[in-house]
Amino acid sequence: MAAEMAEQPAVLAGLASRRLEIIERVRAVVPEPLNGIVLIARGSSDHAAIYGRYVLQPAAARPVVLAAPSLHTLYNSPLHCPGYLAVAVSQSGRTPEIVTVLERHMAAGATGIAVTNDPGSPLAELAQTTIELGAGDERAVPATKTFTSELAAFAIVAEALGEVPWGSEDWAALPSALTDVLEDLEPARRVAEGLAGAEGLISVGRGYLFSVALEAALKLKETTSLLAEGYSAADLRHGPVAVIERDFPVLAFSAPGPAAGDMNELTEWLALTRGARIYKAAPRADAQLPLPPGVPEALMPIPAVVRAQQVAHELALHKGMNPDAPEGLTKITPTI
Amino acid sequence: MAAEMAEQPAVLAGLASRRLEIIERVRAVVPEPLNGIVLIARGSSDHAAIYGRYVLQPAAARPVVLAAPSLHTLYNSPLHCPGYLAVAVSQSGRTPEIVTVLERHMAAGATGIAVTNDPGSPLAELAQTTIELGAGDERAVPATKTFTSELAAFAIVAEALGEVPWGSEDWAALPSALTDVLEDLEPARRVAEGLAGAEGLISVGRGYLFSVALEAALKLKETTSLLAEGYSAADLRHGPVAVIERDFPVLAFSAPGPAAGDMNELTEWLALTRGARIYKAAPRADAQLPLPPGVPEALMPIPAVVRAQQVAHELALHKGMNPDAPEGLTKITPTI
Repeated sequence: MAAEMAEQPAVLAGLASRRLEIIERVRAVVPEPLNGIVLIARGSSDHAAIYGRYVLQPAAARPVVLAAPSLHTLYNSPLHCPGYLAVAVSQSGRTPEIVTVLERHMAAGATGIAVTNDPGSPLAELAQTTIELGAGDERAVPATKTFTSELAAFAIVAEALGEVPWGSEDWAALPSALTDVLEDLEPARRVAEGLAGAEGLISVGRGYLFSVALEAALKLKETTSLLAEGYSAADLRHGPVAVIERDFPVLAFSAPGPAAGDMNELTEWLALTRGARIYKAAPRADAQLPLPPGVPEALMPIPAVVRAQQVAHELALHKGMNPDAPEGLTKITPTI
Repeated sequence: MAAEMAEQPAVLAGLASRRLEIIERVRAVVPEPLNGIVLIARGSSDHAAIYGRYVLQPAAARPVVLAAPSLHTLYNSPLHCPGYLAVAVSQSGRTPEIVTVLERHMAAGATGIAVTNDPGSPLAELAQTTIELGAGDERAVPATKTFTSELAAFAIVAEALGEVPWGSEDWAALPSALTDVLEDLEPARRVAEGLAGAEGLISVGRGYLFSVALEAALKLKETTSLLAEGYSAADLRHGPVAVIERDFPVLAFSAPGPAAGDMNELTEWLALTRGARIYKAAPRADAQLPLPPGVPEALMPIPAVVRAQQVAHELALHKGMNPDAPEGLTKITPTI
């Protein structure tokens, strides 16, 4: 896991270097007129798809659906979706349900794009065009470099569809910003020490960073067996906040932008009224997990999730667990 | 909470008695051609919307989007969605973000339907037509009768859009099936006793019952502060299963149908390989939480969630907590 985490700046730089070529290929297949967008994914890739929704909808100005695979694999739902763009994400390109669900959408009129690490996989063969992650073999069970490259792939698809709140200079700066985060392990170590005795944790984000809250919770569950749950700041207020008692740890992701005010209000309120122990991941001096300054909010999920990976990895080591191969998990999960 | 739970058979019977009139009104506003469906909700209503996706997509044969409110309330995303049907759900009809998000979709070309308890609310005034839940005042913070009536409302909208796997006779039988469940409190009491010392819980379902797994976890969090998380059977296998250690309680919802095989396999595997303590809610003699026989899988979420309400209520009492007004929660959550 640590070795694959360390490859992330190079993988991202590689993907960014193919950006214009990918944008051109995506533009060539986008339906005209575009009726809607469907994202097809599971597990970590589903969290990447949640990020995808936040970058794709503003760029394309179209509703973005996260597909419910069982509607197709179990219930054989009829479907009619001409003019839709369907983006299916699978690291291996071999998860049977992802292939099946993309197939159904394409048979129902959608144009298919595959996002995968393996351009020779069934998913890539099926799609009209493929975005190769180029992340190389991922051996550790917890996805790290494939996850950040999936985020980048969605950001690039968004560029193909319309206006986005970042530019070429941000892509150019991102790899070294990631390297800085990766080389600065001490903050994650301290947070991991603080979490050593925790029985549960809530991670929270809003907007673009909601996906990171979900992925952080999954990384912690996978590698440390900690009962961690990810929420959007808004959903957390609708009831789940009841589980937060004195000293309950909350991992809060935020970045300057429209969601920052809501996040600050939430964390202050949680600390004040419920005595929550807040760990902030933000580009701020007082954050327990500092994020790189100057990264646009919409791309901040990439360095932010690296912070979450570090915390999960350090906490696993602290607990004497093997972060590469958590007990009972396998790399490809053959769900139906 | 208990008093409102007890009203559910009557509320459902009332809604079912207005079924044909509602179907007619919905049919009169459905766009032709229909490009897609957007559901707008938060909290418990968002779980009802997840159920909605499973009944609406097969009936309408169109992709169903669960809207991300912050895209509109915080990021002011542009949107173009002519030919979409937008269904917004809010018990009070006054949650500002739900009203705003429906407004944006209607301004972008969608037809709006409001599902609410208050036909005089801003949400109802905005929509082209309103489905009144008729659930009466809900005073307890945890939604119960409004949740089951929202499920029924989505089922009725599905009938307006196309073929559904249930009929009039199923609506006729449902209220008394619910009464039977409500009068049979002993199973929930025993499960609550079993959960008294638990530090966490995972609830799981697949397909139609995935929504119940989510709502069960929310009810438990709200009323008992138990760190409960809901999963689909497929997502649980993708990593989160790592938190399940010996004796960890798993609440599994299933019903005869295409998802039953997957659920049985999952629970057997969890018990065998991880030593999970499985509590089954199913229409089976060996289920700890028996569900009524003869209810079609697609309507089973209604009695199944009543079982979850019972467990949450009994566990709250067992822990000496007040299920009607959990500490720190309010009935209307004014998220932005």
